[in-house]
Amino acid sequence: MTKFGKREEGVVKLLSEASLRALSDSKTEQERFDGVFVANMGSGEFEGKTGIHNGLISDLALEPAFGTKVENTSGSGGTAFMLGWLSVASGQSDMVLVAGAEKMTSVSTDMATEIIATLTHEEEFKQGITLLSFAGMTARHYMERYGAPRDAIAKVAVKNHANGALNPNAQFQKPVTLEQVLTSPMIADPLRLYDFCPITDGAAALVLVPADRASSFTDKAVKISGVAGATDTHVVHERQDLTVLKSVKLAGERAYRMAGKSPTDIQVAELHDMFTLMEIILSEDLGFFGKGEGWKAVEDGLTERGGRLPINTSGGLKSRGHPIGATGVAQLVEITQQLQGRCGARQVRADVGLACNEAGFGNSAVVSILERV
Amino acid sequence: MTKFGKREEGVVKLLSEASLRALSDSKTEQERFDGVFVANMGSGEFEGKTGIHNGLISDLALEPAFGTKVENTSGSGGTAFMLGWLSVASGQSDMVLVAGAEKMTSVSTDMATEIIATLTHEEEFKQGITLLSFAGMTARHYMERYGAPRDAIAKVAVKNHANGALNPNAQFQKPVTLEQVLTSPMIADPLRLYDFCPITDGAAALVLVPADRASSFTDKAVKISGVAGATDTHVVHERQDLTVLKSVKLAGERAYRMAGKSPTDIQVAELHDMFTLMEIILSEDLGFFGKGEGWKAVEDGLTERGGRLPINTSGGLKSRGHPIGATGVAQLVEITQQLQGRCGARQVRADVGLACNEAGFGNSAVVSILERV
Repeated sequence: MTKFGKREEGVVKLLSEASLRALSDSKTEQERFDGVFVANMGSGEFEGKTGIHNGLISDLALEPAFGTKVENTSGSGGTAFMLGWLSVASGQSDMVLVAGAEKMTSVSTDMATEIIATLTHEEEFKQGITLLSFAGMTARHYMERYGAPRDAIAKVAVKNHANGALNPNAQFQKPVTLEQVLTSPMIADPLRLYDFCPITDGAAALVLVPADRASSFTDKAVKISGVAGATDTHVVHERQDLTVLKSVKLAGERAYRMAGKSPTDIQVAELHDMFTLMEIILSEDLGFFGKGEGWKAVEDGLTERGGRLPINTSGGLKSRGHPIGATGVAQLVEITQQLQGRCGARQVRADVGLACNEAGFGNSAVVSILERV
Repeated sequence: MTKFGKREEGVVKLLSEASLRALSDSKTEQERFDGVFVANMGSGEFEGKTGIHNGLISDLALEPAFGTKVENTSGSGGTAFMLGWLSVASGQSDMVLVAGAEKMTSVSTDMATEIIATLTHEEEFKQGITLLSFAGMTARHYMERYGAPRDAIAKVAVKNHANGALNPNAQFQKPVTLEQVLTSPMIADPLRLYDFCPITDGAAALVLVPADRASSFTDKAVKISGVAGATDTHVVHERQDLTVLKSVKLAGERAYRMAGKSPTDIQVAELHDMFTLMEIILSEDLGFFGKGEGWKAVEDGLTERGGRLPINTSGGLKSRGHPIGATGVAQLVEITQQLQGRCGARQVRADVGLACNEAGFGNSAVVSILERV
């Protein structure tokens, strides 16, 4: 992946930078790629650029490899990965590049928030809803129903910043205190600035090959054991329970089944913490903790690097940053490098890892399970 | 497909309308879909909407079917079809909806042209290039190199309007004369207004199932025999020959090989005639006619409905209209209905058909071959 943060480069250059790193790292620079899946939400809105996958293919001279852009809002990265996997697993492709990127700082923060809000349902959008206001309502609801203290939710930010401080590619490489989170500017009551992921530029990329070819490129290949997606209603107010993401539950169940694994097998996870509480909700819907009990796991330190199940060792969306189309791919980069033992100061012990990338407010989710071979 | 033209509905409503028609036509309203591939170029730029596939899934109550939007500029439709095919052919999905749409009249024609031009390479875009200016340069070059008379190129518009006049879903349902084409306003010398496809709203959809399940829904199933894509340089001026589209040639060769067919087996074709000459160039690069000789086939009437190889019986992009994301899917709807014998006054005799959908100015192409079973 590239360094995340405010970048001068445009989205195609960011894609190229991450992709060249992936090709170099996997020793596939001289290979013939036959598929390129690019994850990106809003190159048209952010930069007035479309067809960016064709730009990437040309920059890397990968013609005549076929490519496309995949847009599944904030779940674009996981979705591109799933299609890349399908292309290789089906025998259609022998070598696939999956790359995700977003260039967001080309517009104001207000405009970026507005562009992101275009993923909400038309009727809810007209009422002025944004993902931030959904987050505030969900947090209020979760706290009241499950008796979760505000501190427990804020501690997700403290944990993720502590991890991000050890990640040279993270946008924010500094720890924050609980007090800093709880006194940061109010955004959507009860959530404050430090509960939310930032606006970020960046890209990440992966190379996929059939399992039996992997050993000719590396002795640290990582196997894709399961990958599945599912959707929930686009209209959030039609859901029965704001604190449950059905798309995540279903995608998780399918991915576990495909991989022959259960939640207790997972030893490291990257979850889509677009705001602090979302990490807790995902950790419940993926079966790591009981419903309404994920906040206790945070209080007890179970999801810290030294805990039973380290979550978001990369810093997560919160601290690594959230360049929308890049995020799902960056999650898989972190899981891959954790399984390869290449994460330096933030390394944990893990043979099996999981990434959960979410589109919109749980409109859609992709869950991927990787393991050491 | 929906009626093409200026429509009041937004892009999600158009997608729903075409999809409901496809579900009704294929008697799959009560079935469980597990994949939804939506082709669309610019819902964000045209309408400020993203995640439109999640809107479609919710409107049709297809949750928890997984879906994504696929953006490969004007080749989005063929690309979504290819991914839908891959999903079914690989065994990953049992029932897939492929739907393409574009809502373009929500902005001015100038703005639409500008939005489309964002697919060109950054460096060429900065020089003020648009697809229209590329078209003019290509036409000048083609005429000089191959001795093609201006009339032969214009006759593609006359032919396609004659076909569109018989298509109740076409945007323009009226014939035009050669004189009308040759005296219409100049756009990009030597090409005039009637050489170009229009700005269009509309949607089209298809249902894909494994071959062995098709007979339980219809006695007129159509088989996908070949589908392949390829890319050429994103920067057009780096190509050796403006009059050859390498992406089309390669995608065609692969699709023929997969289908076990040759160009002479094709009995009806929908080619991406974003301007008149492009249909001629594609008819050459797909092997129907020799290089530089496609214009003679038009002169000789070989590509008319009564000719040896009817091309664009639907009216093509020229007369049926070109709602960008819908086009590749609409091409396949026409080929399907021709093979099913359901095209009324414009019906031709055909057992094998081909569709060629192009992204950008030949940056990428998808060729699909269908046949009666």
